[in-house]
Amino acid sequence: MNSKKRVAIIGAGPSGMAQLRAFESAERAGAEIPELVCFEKQSDWGGQWNFSWRTGVDEHGEPVHSSMYRNLWSNGPKEVLEFADYTFDEHFGRPISSYPPREALWDYIAGRLKNSDVRRYIRFETVVRWVTFDEEAKTFAVASENLVTGETTVETFDHVVVASGHFSSPNFPEFEGIETFPGHVSHAHDFRGAEEFKDQDVLVIGASYSAEDIGSQAYKMGARSVTASYRSEPMGYDWPEGFEERPLVTRFEGNTVHFRDGSSKHVDAVIVCTGYAHKYQFLPQNLALRSRNNVYPDGLYRGVVWQQNPALMYIGAQDQWLTFNMFDAQAWYARDLIMGRLDLPDEAERAQSIREWRARFEAIEDAQDEIVFQCEYVRDLLGMTDYPTFDIDRVREILIAWKNDKKVDIMGYRDRTYRSVMTGTLAAKHHSRWVDELDDSLERYLDIDAEAAEPTKLLAELQLVGR
Amino acid sequence: MNSKKRVAIIGAGPSGMAQLRAFESAERAGAEIPELVCFEKQSDWGGQWNFSWRTGVDEHGEPVHSSMYRNLWSNGPKEVLEFADYTFDEHFGRPISSYPPREALWDYIAGRLKNSDVRRYIRFETVVRWVTFDEEAKTFAVASENLVTGETTVETFDHVVVASGHFSSPNFPEFEGIETFPGHVSHAHDFRGAEEFKDQDVLVIGASYSAEDIGSQAYKMGARSVTASYRSEPMGYDWPEGFEERPLVTRFEGNTVHFRDGSSKHVDAVIVCTGYAHKYQFLPQNLALRSRNNVYPDGLYRGVVWQQNPALMYIGAQDQWLTFNMFDAQAWYARDLIMGRLDLPDEAERAQSIREWRARFEAIEDAQDEIVFQCEYVRDLLGMTDYPTFDIDRVREILIAWKNDKKVDIMGYRDRTYRSVMTGTLAAKHHSRWVDELDDSLERYLDIDAEAAEPTKLLAELQLVGR
Repeated sequence: MNSKKRVAIIGAGPSGMAQLRAFESAERAGAEIPELVCFEKQSDWGGQWNFSWRTGVDEHGEPVHSSMYRNLWSNGPKEVLEFADYTFDEHFGRPISSYPPREALWDYIAGRLKNSDVRRYIRFETVVRWVTFDEEAKTFAVASENLVTGETTVETFDHVVVASGHFSSPNFPEFEGIETFPGHVSHAHDFRGAEEFKDQDVLVIGASYSAEDIGSQAYKMGARSVTASYRSEPMGYDWPEGFEERPLVTRFEGNTVHFRDGSSKHVDAVIVCTGYAHKYQFLPQNLALRSRNNVYPDGLYRGVVWQQNPALMYIGAQDQWLTFNMFDAQAWYARDLIMGRLDLPDEAERAQSIREWRARFEAIEDAQDEIVFQCEYVRDLLGMTDYPTFDIDRVREILIAWKNDKKVDIMGYRDRTYRSVMTGTLAAKHHSRWVDELDDSLERYLDIDAEAAEPTKLLAELQLVGR
Repeated sequence: MNSKKRVAIIGAGPSGMAQLRAFESAERAGAEIPELVCFEKQSDWGGQWNFSWRTGVDEHGEPVHSSMYRNLWSNGPKEVLEFADYTFDEHFGRPISSYPPREALWDYIAGRLKNSDVRRYIRFETVVRWVTFDEEAKTFAVASENLVTGETTVETFDHVVVASGHFSSPNFPEFEGIETFPGHVSHAHDFRGAEEFKDQDVLVIGASYSAEDIGSQAYKMGARSVTASYRSEPMGYDWPEGFEERPLVTRFEGNTVHFRDGSSKHVDAVIVCTGYAHKYQFLPQNLALRSRNNVYPDGLYRGVVWQQNPALMYIGAQDQWLTFNMFDAQAWYARDLIMGRLDLPDEAERAQSIREWRARFEAIEDAQDEIVFQCEYVRDLLGMTDYPTFDIDRVREILIAWKNDKKVDIMGYRDRTYRSVMTGTLAAKHHSRWVDELDDSLERYLDIDAEAAEPTKLLAELQLVGR
């Protein structure tokens, strides 16, 4: 008889990997850890950072998880997301720039786990179908499907950690007449690269990160024009020639799009950048978080523990200014609750904590408030576990400076450098400007002998390859 | 206490609608019918025929069901799919053409149920999450989610009828280098219209119905070239100028696609037409059909009853030459088993029947054999219930003539007319040729005073609207 606790981790993206790392770290320090099973529907780890050219549903008919595109570079400085227990210096062995392309970031998060043996806990290409909680036994039954063999397995767990992310399931409103638009309509989730929009008039609907970056990608790849449509407020950046913002789309009429200010415009392609919805199709109502995307979803004690059933935990369920190191802070906290190193307060005390944080959350007025809020939230978690603490005030300062960089130069902010909060290392100045660089590979990124990109030449080569 | 049997029907597309109609028909004849609950994830009925401009996942984050495109016209004569208990004459009140556009066919299948009250059995925007069978109670527990409220419901049923279709979940193989292709790559499932391919070089991968019709749509909408890539055999039609077939794609290199014969070609867009996979994510392995798309999936007695658990039934699980009237024949049969009007043979006898039909299936050599096989299959079912019988030999003859029409004129076969098997009515000659008609609306289709389309003028108008 095995009396070890059993823990199911749903998802092997950054949040699930943080949870695995948290347990591994305890084990390395000599503790006995629970039995872990991590369910991952994809064939590799990395979640959002596991790029796929596929859109819609994947090779097994499951909704494609990642919203990643070929040409994505981090849209925030890496210095705010750096792991406190595995620095960029440790991984790359030398300073790199502050805004790495996706391959470099994937390499980094995978690199932390590569030399451990946590991968054996992960069941790849295995999707969780349905989770139920047995009130008498106080255990979860997790039904999963091996997508390769079709085999269904039902297993019992003492804890479930939901680490499946919430930037995968598009929030995609209806627009009048959109069914008459003869061009390609897609959600940001299905955007894989802007090369196809060269010489086209592109409409992005939205005024948040996806609209900003996908619009910028279209500009970079040679779209004839980029129009961004906002609901409440324009992004208000100093956009380059050919990039403009207009108010909300009221309707489509064939290729003509009408805006709330009465203006209209011909567009060839539409990318709807209206964000994502929390989606837990494997959880019944009494276990599923229902929330808009925000920095303090209701119902989660310390942003982690499901108030209705504290044996269930969520990692990374918040909107994110900090990312990887916040998941770590949460995962270490979840680990210590599961391992009994920390006591969980009773229901009333948890409810009181949620009320207090929700009140602070409700008082948030702008992005800067939100940054301050999230830094305070992480600071609160950091004190509770043995996760290496770090200077959260400095993280906050970098985030606020970054916001300003974007205001100054939206197409150039990625060329700026910051100093690591963890090591003090100043980021390297990259060999090429983001707006000029058309090769986003890790190889090119790490090529220290590379000349700065000559954009005209590179673009010509790209087109030659294409013919 | 209610002692009525309870039946869950999963899906309110043509198959689920046939099942509802079957029960309704018995009720109209005075019989007491079981309690019915039909689960439909979309907000309306029609399944594949319920067109959505959306691709990927829908407004609730569920995989979009329908593979329908704006401009689809039936690709087989309506005379082979006509309901025996509700004719096209009855619905439209006059002869219509043999190849109606999608809106006309949706109107027809919805029209049959409109004047009944079966719609009250359907829970729209409600998705079945997980089905289990209780071996002791001999009942199914069906967990479903109301996609609007998030409410989870678990209910008990004596029978489950799976009518969720199998042309929704793409079969989408990997191609070497496809991640380097900078244009738009999609599966036929996400194809909504070919207007965006005007003046482009389009590659369709596949040699079956999707490749044939989507390639033809691209040609019709003004693609610069259409290349269809086949794995084993070319479609071999007499394609028009600018439409060619090449062997299998071996790899992509940017915009260049390489074929097995060593040739290569520049293409702007790729539509992968490699068919669909059976996908029952709500069923555990012991209830889920696993099969390639064929006319006699293994494990289904009479193509309907799940051999491992005969309280579970499938409607429309076959590849389909006949469609709507075959679903009817199956649904009436399922109804009579459920209502105890027919006795289910014991397991051994069922196994023997499956073996016999599978042996006939294995002997199929070509499309004509398959047509004969499916007609015999339907004939066998027709004799068992009170579904109005019809001249299945005539259906077979029409199918074989249709195959020949396509050989003679692939862009013109839809202009041919056939005579109804049910009423003897000769289809109307349509006012416009398929290849010229750019307005696929029901209004235009039914406009008997319409002039034949003037393609050049219409195309110009379409473009004007777009500016």
